Amino acid sequence: KSSTLREMYYISEGWDIAKFHAQEESNLLAEDLEVITQLLREDFKLRPEESGASVIGNLTLEEITRNGDRKRINCRDDVGDAGYTIPYNVEKEKVKLVESDAKFILAIETGGMFDRLVENGFDEDAKCILVHLKGQPSRSTRRLLKRLNEELKINVATFTDGDPWSFRIHASVAYGAIKTAHISEYLATPTAEFVGITASDILNYDLPTDALTPRDIGALNAEMTDPRFNDEFWRNEIQAMLQINKKAEQQALAKYGLDYVTDTYLPEKLGPLGLM
Amino acid sequence: KSSTLREMYYISEGWDIAKFHAQEESNLLAEDLEVITQLLREDFKLRPEESGASVIGNLTLEEITRNGDRKRINCRDDVGDAGYTIPYNVEKEKVKLVESDAKFILAIETGGMFDRLVENGFDEDAKCILVHLKGQPSRSTRRLLKRLNEELKINVATFTDGDPWSFRIHASVAYGAIKTAHISEYLATPTAEFVGITASDILNYDLPTDALTPRDIGALNAEMTDPRFNDEFWRNEIQAMLQINKKAEQQALAKYGLDYVTDTYLPEKLGPLGLM
Repeated sequence: KSSTLREMYYISEGWDIAKFHAQEESNLLAEDLEVITQLLREDFKLRPEESGASVIGNLTLEEITRNGDRKRINCRDDVGDAGYTIPYNVEKEKVKLVESDAKFILAIETGGMFDRLVENGFDEDAKCILVHLKGQPSRSTRRLLKRLNEELKINVATFTDGDPWSFRIHASVAYGAIKTAHISEYLATPTAEFVGITASDILNYDLPTDALTPRDIGALNAEMTDPRFNDEFWRNEIQAMLQINKKAEQQALAKYGLDYVTDTYLPEKLGPLGLM
Repeated sequence: KSSTLREMYYISEGWDIAKFHAQEESNLLAEDLEVITQLLREDFKLRPEESGASVIGNLTLEEITRNGDRKRINCRDDVGDAGYTIPYNVEKEKVKLVESDAKFILAIETGGMFDRLVENGFDEDAKCILVHLKGQPSRSTRRLLKRLNEELKINVATFTDGDPWSFRIHASVAYGAIKTAHISEYLATPTAEFVGITASDILNYDLPTDALTPRDIGALNAEMTDPRFNDEFWRNEIQAMLQINKKAEQQALAKYGLDYVTDTYLPEKLGPLGLM
């Protein structure tokens, strides 16, 4: 049986000795075990609490269900409009990737934009797989993106809001989170491209914006020294955002109508990357 | 085409006159339209941003997909272990409820507990439908619960943490949120029973707890005058929680092992309600 970190902590409450004093302790033990054994916590049957992302597109996979059955699911033909939900364990013994004709994966930050692209049929028109990250992506979401990239050779592009927190969503997909640095080779997709809203986009597309808050400014300054953003593209975009003192949401593209994002913005961003 | 409230606001940014000045204004317009026309915002093709819940159990439904196809989905046999995700629109023209042999629906607050019950096969053993509410349930989740209750005559029970915020999750399922009072007849399931953790459970099951925070205490005091909690059961439980000054999570039942919740706790709570 598998358990969550939280359950592992509570289980110890039933013990007489060797009890954990706070969940912090049992969480750290799980991380230490990962580092020492070079295994994933999923191998110890510890499962995360966050829910996985939704997937829509022509991707066929096979899930070994809780009853041990092999269930073949096509993430376009066999699911409803809300998509296939990534389970908490996506290792090979649980999820087998069968096939896909997708040219790329678009990993989308917000539900509103995911539903927009689904409604507009962008996965069919652009031959891609749409993934709704649901904010900071869960371990299983990042792991599945990594496996799709590695095993099926599909490029990944992240499409987020234009603010410092969204830049970190991209960084966690591409380079991993600092907390899970010891297993980023399992979770990170270093070739992931960013097609989210940048400071340049705010200017070029004349998007509706909000002013940066003091917390936003602090986060952007921290990113200036974050090794994950240490290249020319990110340094320029972060500095430009600080300078114009503005951020924008991906849904701001609706200023030009509901089809602008699929007819104009995404082709203009994905084209130069060779993805469309 | 449908749009989110956020898109509706941004669309107006492209207008010369009659522009909204803040999203607050366009949101209020949507609510006013609902009240005046007695229609749901879904009828105006306005869709919420929150994502819908996951469903596992022997429930067959038919979704009319974005391409107009009728897709029949059994929420046990046709989906992966993460379940069927409720789409943003669950009105009859989009989702048709076909059949179910379930004796009740268990609407669960946290992902950790949902996954526990799925792994333990509780939906099969107890002949029920498991729904992961994902915290405060979205409109489409509440609407689907209502329709299952009304059209297929299935009872609903909510299983949450034991704290004032979780009590409000139950209240929003059973009586609606204050914000959406004008449409609670579409969204609320007044016969929903509460089988979440109560102050009595904390004492009877000797559960691991945390102390109430000042915010928790404020919320409990507010609930003492909330008409949705104006009955003997809730008054006693809220007062008892204030008195013991403790709250507990549903996963605290793991103190007695990973099967305790399905073998002992839920049968003991659901039995007296005639659901198990």
